[in-house]
Amino acid sequence: MNPKITRFIAEKNPATPCLVVDVDEVEARYRALGQALPQARIYYAVKANPARPILDRLVGLGSCFDAASWEEVSLCLQAGADPAAISFGNTVKKVSAIRAAYEAGVRMFVFDCREELEKLARHAPGSRVYCRLLVDNYAAEWPLSRKFGTTVESARDLMLAARDMGLDPYGLSFHVGSQQLSAEAYEVAIARVASLFTDLSAAGLDLRMINLGGGFPIRYREDVPEIDHFAEAIFGAMTEHFGNAMPDMLVEPGRFIVGEAGVVHTEVVLVSARGRTDGLRWVYLDIGRFGGLAETENESIRYAIRTGRDGAPSGPVALAGPTCDGADILYEKTRYDLPLDLESGEVIDLLGTGAYVSTYCSTRFNGFAPLAEHYI
Amino acid sequence: MNPKITRFIAEKNPATPCLVVDVDEVEARYRALGQALPQARIYYAVKANPARPILDRLVGLGSCFDAASWEEVSLCLQAGADPAAISFGNTVKKVSAIRAAYEAGVRMFVFDCREELEKLARHAPGSRVYCRLLVDNYAAEWPLSRKFGTTVESARDLMLAARDMGLDPYGLSFHVGSQQLSAEAYEVAIARVASLFTDLSAAGLDLRMINLGGGFPIRYREDVPEIDHFAEAIFGAMTEHFGNAMPDMLVEPGRFIVGEAGVVHTEVVLVSARGRTDGLRWVYLDIGRFGGLAETENESIRYAIRTGRDGAPSGPVALAGPTCDGADILYEKTRYDLPLDLESGEVIDLLGTGAYVSTYCSTRFNGFAPLAEHYI
Repeated sequence: MNPKITRFIAEKNPATPCLVVDVDEVEARYRALGQALPQARIYYAVKANPARPILDRLVGLGSCFDAASWEEVSLCLQAGADPAAISFGNTVKKVSAIRAAYEAGVRMFVFDCREELEKLARHAPGSRVYCRLLVDNYAAEWPLSRKFGTTVESARDLMLAARDMGLDPYGLSFHVGSQQLSAEAYEVAIARVASLFTDLSAAGLDLRMINLGGGFPIRYREDVPEIDHFAEAIFGAMTEHFGNAMPDMLVEPGRFIVGEAGVVHTEVVLVSARGRTDGLRWVYLDIGRFGGLAETENESIRYAIRTGRDGAPSGPVALAGPTCDGADILYEKTRYDLPLDLESGEVIDLLGTGAYVSTYCSTRFNGFAPLAEHYI
Repeated sequence: MNPKITRFIAEKNPATPCLVVDVDEVEARYRALGQALPQARIYYAVKANPARPILDRLVGLGSCFDAASWEEVSLCLQAGADPAAISFGNTVKKVSAIRAAYEAGVRMFVFDCREELEKLARHAPGSRVYCRLLVDNYAAEWPLSRKFGTTVESARDLMLAARDMGLDPYGLSFHVGSQQLSAEAYEVAIARVASLFTDLSAAGLDLRMINLGGGFPIRYREDVPEIDHFAEAIFGAMTEHFGNAMPDMLVEPGRFIVGEAGVVHTEVVLVSARGRTDGLRWVYLDIGRFGGLAETENESIRYAIRTGRDGAPSGPVALAGPTCDGADILYEKTRYDLPLDLESGEVIDLLGTGAYVSTYCSTRFNGFAPLAEHYI
């Protein structure tokens, strides 16, 4: 576990549940990605964790930002981000949000259908726009595919329409899904984008940008390929398809930047075999699916757990949250083992929880206050 | 749609998304349940909607309260509830929460395993305790079964142990699942509880209470059996099994009391066929699964939708929320039809949203502020 966070918890003994994030680790991850993929501009996906200390640090490092809403645009501006460094990256935007962002100086917007493009033409005239393509999410642990993106054929028409509407048809984007384990997913998507670049060029429209989205995986319970592996695959595919005419490359990492920088510190509320004789115990924590661990839905994201006695004799457990909701179960099918003498009142840590935890947290489900956050 | 809420929305034109709750309707539902089942004391399940105007009204009506946490106990006390009218109804409680509730005068607690019972014996000595039995949730639209409850055999041992620990072994509870459509589920559970009453009586322990839980369904898109139907089945089963020696009967309705009293007023952010030629349009609202509509997970709860032009020519839609999360889809498999000329910027209403919406809402996922609430 991150030594700075370990020390903070030991010294401060913060009330549980809480999220502790090492902002230096955020910086280290940002720098690591920049080194692995120096050709790309990094647009941090603010939705992964919009905490001010993270935004402040990233603004200082020269990061750009991918905002999902006007509210996130506003958070970036408050942290000192240049509006020219902000992409409004949600394909679904209220007119009021488009207007507010445009008035604040934001000039880059995504879309994936004609109706959204028409909104942009009207309320963000002249802006750079890019179209999101639908691509395969097959190897992603948190897939994103059904709701967003359009076909190559439709994107072609829409980019030409964007020009006719007085917008600046800047480029194309795709998302291979979050926590994507296969570099091939990027290669396949880049090939598809490249063919559309060629098509549109033949139609007299030269695109200048590829937004590769995010999806770079982090370590939960198992090792994942290093970022260099993805970077090499991406750069290889880009070189193969674009040669010397390399377009602007954007990436939108969220989980990769903040995930491993965070630890959720939680208390065991109850441990019980509940009358079972097969050795399985139920362990109830003071945080669950509705306290921020929403990505445990369907046991998709499987966090690593640290106790004060790792290595002690252990046995299988099911893990659940503290609410009266029957759906508030973290892991029942996935095998987890915890110390045999684990007891109510003990504190344990969930690693890799810096991303998509503080914001999913409910306002007060079952009366529980939102997750406390510490940025160190 | 509720005429008071219709008028409020027409007159005030509140910003979307928001929840509007008719507190008079809450009272009407409370009274209707009391009339249908006069033998039972009503413990309102605070988790369904803990808003102060609702608690105030129910305190005034003499309701008791089922609290899921110390924080909910505290909300009830702030609204003027008598601590003797509060049941701490979560089988999973922190020691600090048990202590705080006990110190505040709460004397009724649930448990479903020995470890929790031991906590109660130590930190809430002498309190009334009741044991939650595991029962079948098969006809519930939002089942609760796996995480809670114990077997009849285990409950027998635990109730005897409770007596030995100096607690007051008051009774038994079960939950047939939320939005339960079958009255038979109650009948089966009552029979099981009754047999355990008999067993324990033979062992020298006379229980005095049955907590029937909640689960009474409300109307979403389809009619559901009237509350009288459930009340008759329950009273019939109770009479059959207990005759003149009727124990105290408790019910813990949440959804039934507040669900139909609420309407979510939402704006259509985008409507698009997204290149499809089969007539299906995607409709994106400014509220989704992470803005409070968590019960649309797996399309479990299917809200009725009202537009300003119901009856106009309509066609099939998929419905999704406003976030960049691919999981933020409300209905894709369930058939919904909306007007063919539905447009971005229109407001529509989701009915039956008074329960389990305001509290599931995330603190700020994708930057969106928590759902605004209006109690009228």
